[in-house]
Amino acid sequence: MPAGDGVRFELLSGHDGGPRLGRLWIGELAVPTPAFMPVGTRATVKTLDSEILQEIGARLILANTYHLFLRPGAERIARLGGLHRFMSWPGGILTDSGGFQVHSLAEFREIRPDGIEFRSHLDGTRHFLTPEAILEIQARLGSDIRMVLDVCTSQPAALSETARDVELTLRWAERSREAWTAQARPGAAEPGGAGERRAGSAGAALFAIVQGGTFPELRRACARRLVSLGFDGYALGGFSVGEPVEARPAALEAALAELPRERPRYLMGVGTPEDILDAVGLGVDLFDCVLPTRNARKATVFTWKGKMIVKNSAFAEDPRPLDPDCPCAACRRYSRAYLRHLFQVGEQLAGRLATIHSLAFYQQLMAGIREALAAGRYADFAREARARMTRGAQA
Amino acid sequence: MPAGDGVRFELLSGHDGGPRLGRLWIGELAVPTPAFMPVGTRATVKTLDSEILQEIGARLILANTYHLFLRPGAERIARLGGLHRFMSWPGGILTDSGGFQVHSLAEFREIRPDGIEFRSHLDGTRHFLTPEAILEIQARLGSDIRMVLDVCTSQPAALSETARDVELTLRWAERSREAWTAQARPGAAEPGGAGERRAGSAGAALFAIVQGGTFPELRRACARRLVSLGFDGYALGGFSVGEPVEARPAALEAALAELPRERPRYLMGVGTPEDILDAVGLGVDLFDCVLPTRNARKATVFTWKGKMIVKNSAFAEDPRPLDPDCPCAACRRYSRAYLRHLFQVGEQLAGRLATIHSLAFYQQLMAGIREALAAGRYADFAREARARMTRGAQA
Repeated sequence: MPAGDGVRFELLSGHDGGPRLGRLWIGELAVPTPAFMPVGTRATVKTLDSEILQEIGARLILANTYHLFLRPGAERIARLGGLHRFMSWPGGILTDSGGFQVHSLAEFREIRPDGIEFRSHLDGTRHFLTPEAILEIQARLGSDIRMVLDVCTSQPAALSETARDVELTLRWAERSREAWTAQARPGAAEPGGAGERRAGSAGAALFAIVQGGTFPELRRACARRLVSLGFDGYALGGFSVGEPVEARPAALEAALAELPRERPRYLMGVGTPEDILDAVGLGVDLFDCVLPTRNARKATVFTWKGKMIVKNSAFAEDPRPLDPDCPCAACRRYSRAYLRHLFQVGEQLAGRLATIHSLAFYQQLMAGIREALAAGRYADFAREARARMTRGAQA
Repeated sequence: MPAGDGVRFELLSGHDGGPRLGRLWIGELAVPTPAFMPVGTRATVKTLDSEILQEIGARLILANTYHLFLRPGAERIARLGGLHRFMSWPGGILTDSGGFQVHSLAEFREIRPDGIEFRSHLDGTRHFLTPEAILEIQARLGSDIRMVLDVCTSQPAALSETARDVELTLRWAERSREAWTAQARPGAAEPGGAGERRAGSAGAALFAIVQGGTFPELRRACARRLVSLGFDGYALGGFSVGEPVEARPAALEAALAELPRERPRYLMGVGTPEDILDAVGLGVDLFDCVLPTRNARKATVFTWKGKMIVKNSAFAEDPRPLDPDCPCAACRRYSRAYLRHLFQVGEQLAGRLATIHSLAFYQQLMAGIREALAAGRYADFAREARARMTRGAQA
């Protein structure tokens, strides 16, 4: 299956089992990879407008199908010209399938062979979503990269339970693949509506999600069968959901080894800067995580010297910016003392400035990773970065 | 008494009892008047950074001595180089005296002949502040325009009670005037510390506050005696504190008639666009009010067509900006539908975008007022603006 007209992946360097340098093209927009996607759950990266998000250097963001389906509704967003126009975002958008949100947020959920029934965490209304319906919703949103509906296994989980979830994930992926072909057929009805450049599936990409919990053999089998179906990219789901950290590398490597070189690999919901350094080393191209944004709103920011607790009384009269070497809009103008004050008195500006800094840091981290990859010194870079973050955190 | 070196007022046109066009100079910074000051209570105009505040066109903002005295403390701000540097604000700052906040916020307050004793609304700690101490705190903050401590009369209030508060307000103004001369004496110790261009009183201006409730004769007497003491400007306090609206014009006019032409007049805490149109007509030069910012955070914005309730379901799929003719950062990029969505789901960005628009509208209102004054057609402008706002609000 060819990648969508609008989305294609260009692998610049990298060997099997090692880190990769690439470019994800979304129309004319190049997203250099490895890349980190800020999370814009409800059509906004919390506290940020799209203007500052551009300034930070983000080119591809994630939005949540589950949340947008409930409010304001996918039909509404379609009538308003799609998600890009709705949130005034000129960059790329990946929408997840909602499988994880139903798993973690819904008041009640029942996984049936043909889809997921759940009650909204907002008002208790009942919904039933099939793999096909999930794709239609994403077509209405008009996102550039769309995810198939999957079953995220609750941790801890036994082999049998995980295998059952993998089976259903695969069955749904197959149905999604078929629906996608039908949607993309020339002349097929486009629920996203005319007029929006990206609405509909013609220019969009479809990613499948590898599940399999902490069991390398299940991960391997799942990946292999998804690849045989053929998708534009492959996501690695079910990580950072409470599984033992030490089980992660083997499960990740087993899946990655099955994926085709020429397709992007996306590790969902991961992670800390250290997690990202590890996963890049294994060959992952795309990341998303609420960590930098959520922590920032709670007064913890990321820097090259590790995490910084902005409310720390040591910063009460510190005139330096969060990171004196950071060029972000927060560090250009504001001191640690001022940010601490804003957090102490509960001003909203605090969360915004901290979010700007932490996302800017994540962008700098990814840029540093890409530079090191281009220079052929990734292992050194990752070791040094890890050491700096650890030293700083102890200081 | 001459105005401070750094702050002076230039009256460009206007006759006694009528609207005035002027310029308030703060060093090299010209603030065209009539002007509206956004309220930056705790060293931030809520939800906004200083960069967007500049873009909106604000040149002079208000900060609250009471709040900053409690957190993070005036000494701390002085050690960090003063309030301008602390909040990274290149424009002018007026600090109020805290009299109104003690009146409205403190858990307990006792007005004594030599000052105010109160308990912090935050932690119940006791404080006693004299008129001299209030000036020292403002010197530490390093604001450009400072206010004397006054007694704000609770409404409704009898003549005798109001007269007693006026007497104390006058006694404190006299003490403030003396302390100010001592502070400004060459070689006098400067609590604001060296290094900050505006810290200390040498370049700053001191405004007195006319009280007198709804009694024109008390307003007149209070204004006359304050003028005889000589201040750089005169504020009109005790309005918008629950007094009958119909009693306002007479009390306001009585005070204004006593004030010298060549000094700026500042109506504290007022008000709606209509209130501002009225007061400009009577000769007021400066305004501040939490209305545009507070209402914006609660999803009500101001436009030339009156107030707009952004959560109104009529806007759910409205692709137009809040005001199609507004050039603000919110109207340039975002639709009513998007703003409504952000408010519905409780995203912080909602309050920020609405605040940007409402403050931009207030700046446009003041610019419109000044243009009309320059063209000699203020009465027509005010009538038309009032009619547009009323019509729009009914639509």
